[in-house]
Amino acid sequence: MNRKMVFRTVGMIVLLEAALLLLPLVTSLIYGEAKSALAFLETIGIAVVFGGALCLFCKTEKTTIYAKEGFVVTALTWILLSLIGALPFVFSGDIPSYIDAVFETASGFSTTGATILDDPAVCSHGILFWRSFTHWLGGMGVLVLMVAILPAGNEGRPIHILRAEMPGPTMGKLVPKLKDTAKILYVLYLALTGIEVVFLLCGGMSLFEALTLSFGTAGTGGLALRADSIAFYSSYVQWTITVFMFLFGVNFNLYYLILIGKAKQIFKNEELWTYTGIVVAAALMIAVNVRDTFATFGEAIRAGFFQTVAFITTTGYSTAPFDSWPVFSKTILFTLMFIGGCAGSTGGGLKVARILLMFKTAKRDLTKMLHPRSVPVVRMDGRIVEEDTVRNLGSYLMIYFIFFLFFTFVLSFEKDFNLLENITAVSACLNNIGPGFGKVSSTCAGYSDVSKCFLSLAMLLGRLEIYPILFCFVPSTWSKK
Amino acid sequence: MNRKMVFRTVGMIVLLEAALLLLPLVTSLIYGEAKSALAFLETIGIAVVFGGALCLFCKTEKTTIYAKEGFVVTALTWILLSLIGALPFVFSGDIPSYIDAVFETASGFSTTGATILDDPAVCSHGILFWRSFTHWLGGMGVLVLMVAILPAGNEGRPIHILRAEMPGPTMGKLVPKLKDTAKILYVLYLALTGIEVVFLLCGGMSLFEALTLSFGTAGTGGLALRADSIAFYSSYVQWTITVFMFLFGVNFNLYYLILIGKAKQIFKNEELWTYTGIVVAAALMIAVNVRDTFATFGEAIRAGFFQTVAFITTTGYSTAPFDSWPVFSKTILFTLMFIGGCAGSTGGGLKVARILLMFKTAKRDLTKMLHPRSVPVVRMDGRIVEEDTVRNLGSYLMIYFIFFLFFTFVLSFEKDFNLLENITAVSACLNNIGPGFGKVSSTCAGYSDVSKCFLSLAMLLGRLEIYPILFCFVPSTWSKK
Repeated sequence: MNRKMVFRTVGMIVLLEAALLLLPLVTSLIYGEAKSALAFLETIGIAVVFGGALCLFCKTEKTTIYAKEGFVVTALTWILLSLIGALPFVFSGDIPSYIDAVFETASGFSTTGATILDDPAVCSHGILFWRSFTHWLGGMGVLVLMVAILPAGNEGRPIHILRAEMPGPTMGKLVPKLKDTAKILYVLYLALTGIEVVFLLCGGMSLFEALTLSFGTAGTGGLALRADSIAFYSSYVQWTITVFMFLFGVNFNLYYLILIGKAKQIFKNEELWTYTGIVVAAALMIAVNVRDTFATFGEAIRAGFFQTVAFITTTGYSTAPFDSWPVFSKTILFTLMFIGGCAGSTGGGLKVARILLMFKTAKRDLTKMLHPRSVPVVRMDGRIVEEDTVRNLGSYLMIYFIFFLFFTFVLSFEKDFNLLENITAVSACLNNIGPGFGKVSSTCAGYSDVSKCFLSLAMLLGRLEIYPILFCFVPSTWSKK
Repeated sequence: MNRKMVFRTVGMIVLLEAALLLLPLVTSLIYGEAKSALAFLETIGIAVVFGGALCLFCKTEKTTIYAKEGFVVTALTWILLSLIGALPFVFSGDIPSYIDAVFETASGFSTTGATILDDPAVCSHGILFWRSFTHWLGGMGVLVLMVAILPAGNEGRPIHILRAEMPGPTMGKLVPKLKDTAKILYVLYLALTGIEVVFLLCGGMSLFEALTLSFGTAGTGGLALRADSIAFYSSYVQWTITVFMFLFGVNFNLYYLILIGKAKQIFKNEELWTYTGIVVAAALMIAVNVRDTFATFGEAIRAGFFQTVAFITTTGYSTAPFDSWPVFSKTILFTLMFIGGCAGSTGGGLKVARILLMFKTAKRDLTKMLHPRSVPVVRMDGRIVEEDTVRNLGSYLMIYFIFFLFFTFVLSFEKDFNLLENITAVSACLNNIGPGFGKVSSTCAGYSDVSKCFLSLAMLLGRLEIYPILFCFVPSTWSKK
């Protein structure tokens, strides 16, 4: 592996983070929060020195990134971003424990939205802005951002980085040049976020609230400003957020198709229809199931759609006490946790495309068993799916469940949490949702430091779809050959 | 599909069941239980008329069994065996509800061991004998028995039946002739059961108890004679049952290898070593974890080994209140539920061979990702595993989880059971274990009739590894072509 190049790229990302920290710094200054402003300044200083040193000392001529380098750059980037991004929380005193702060930051970047804060309202504006801004950055990806804004120089180089950072079973380039693909994605992302901000402002929300909540929606993150998440807001705001959570759970390639006038192709997209179908069906079933706990059926419908979309897109906002809903509704929510958003969206989970592919593969293999001489194929959107993609799906699921089990065991040493709470906590972190059931339905504060470290790892694993971080721990990845 | 042949074969099995019912009839007569004896007589009458009619009216020249016919024969056989086998429970009055009786019988044949009886001691000896005897028949398979004892006539015919009935990712013929394979398996099974009976008799147990508990061990079933399962018995009995549960969870092919003097080959069997390793590791971890709840560490070790083996082999006997153990131990037991016994044993679950293959495939695919030009293969016991086997493993896991989810949803309509109880109940039935956690740790009596019907189906699905019953519901299976 070309270590110098890996460290140099990571160094550049750290410098980028330093630049991005200017935004919460400005927020702190606007609100006159001296302590937070200083915290951001200190962190920027550390990032500049550390990132600058990496860039200076790791100069290299060879800049080609192969699969290995792509994985390692991505893994190291995300881990470092979380470790450095946690510093302002500690320096400002809003989250005194560094481990708690790392948990909160990893939860932010990974767009999980699990929190250790009982009431976020105790934090300063600058800190809350940074907390939500990490969602926005993590949603579309920090490396994608780097590719989009840094001068190109060597084309074709970052394909393995983008592939490692972007979720889904396959990665589609929108346009031949990767740099342009990254730019288009970020412009779409920015535009959609902007539209949500405007809609929320129309609902009478302050700019600060509208921005932070939109960041949380856009990244399908879920860290909110209040202990009761979104329950406090008007039904207009709740419906607006529902719609935008849904939109951010859609594959961004589809928005690009609309932009270039190929909207018709969207109707052929099986993943979109499956996603929409699941949302409508689940929301209606929940609404009928919980109608007795609401004053009107309309409220049940609103809560049903909000919670369904919040879980399937893995945002994790909440407007209702879903933990006390009947078992049927909770089983639906638990299932949605694993399904996740569409591939190529900012949502987490297994992704609708994988679930769809899973059903199609199962059907194919059953046909083959009944009619041994037939040669059935798996088709998606009318095209034959390569056998390699199908095979990789199988091994992804296996590795996913192995990690799921591993984290459940780690949590099982906790004294105050039962098996279901642990399972839902792991599911909430590995699928980047945020809330689980029972004691972990609002905060993870009760877990020990060790568990919090592992859950932070689970969140990053989930966001990067396991492989990059997994390969970081394989010694052969690091060999110089 | 050749329907006549299918129905004729099923008819023969029903006649075989009538013959097998003579054993509990004799037991009833020995104990002078007139009511039970009459119940068995009536059932035998019904089975003879029904099975005889099927055989008489469905004569056919074409007797070749293809994959389709194999699946359907197996599925129908097991469903009918359960429906008819439930009659004595109702006729004798020991279980008045027919649905409860079907649940108990399906639990018996599928070697699950879940029960709706709060205290089995209320039943007569004949009924208890039949209840445990279904475990013994279901363990090795009724169709295997038929192939073993009926005159051969047409060799090569029943391969698809055996393949459908015997668990595991692949099926190995011991000897070229299938009939001989079936015979050898049953002789080994009978011998091993006999040895256990002798050991239990040496522990001062009555012949009746020794027989019934051995049937439950041999089939890795788990229906016991007392409400507290095996907790009542001496430590000698508990250790004996532990050892035999372990032995019946081993692939029977290995015993054949010992018999023909090829014992050395056993040491190359990776599944056996993985199975042994998991058992020892899990038992020791549990023992350490629960040591405070026992008077001595020796007792903790005994309970740890007993419960570990009872869960991994999917027998489901119990000697300790495992439901109130710490979460760490419960997480281990929950995991063991899914692993299951070795392929080709009487144990249920996913089978150790599948888990092993899963890890190897994941490792192979990870290697392939890191070194795109390499061509790594999956090896088991030193031999290359065919790509088809690996692929079928993937689709089996997918279909397994789809059914798991389906049954969890069915149970979610119950008012008195929480999500964890439902998940463990489904796991206990689909993996053929028996007990779950919480309210389902001793009896499933609290579930509604609808849920009991679905759980009965789940038990049979689990025993037959899903495909046969699944294909029964596919219309194209039944086409005459």
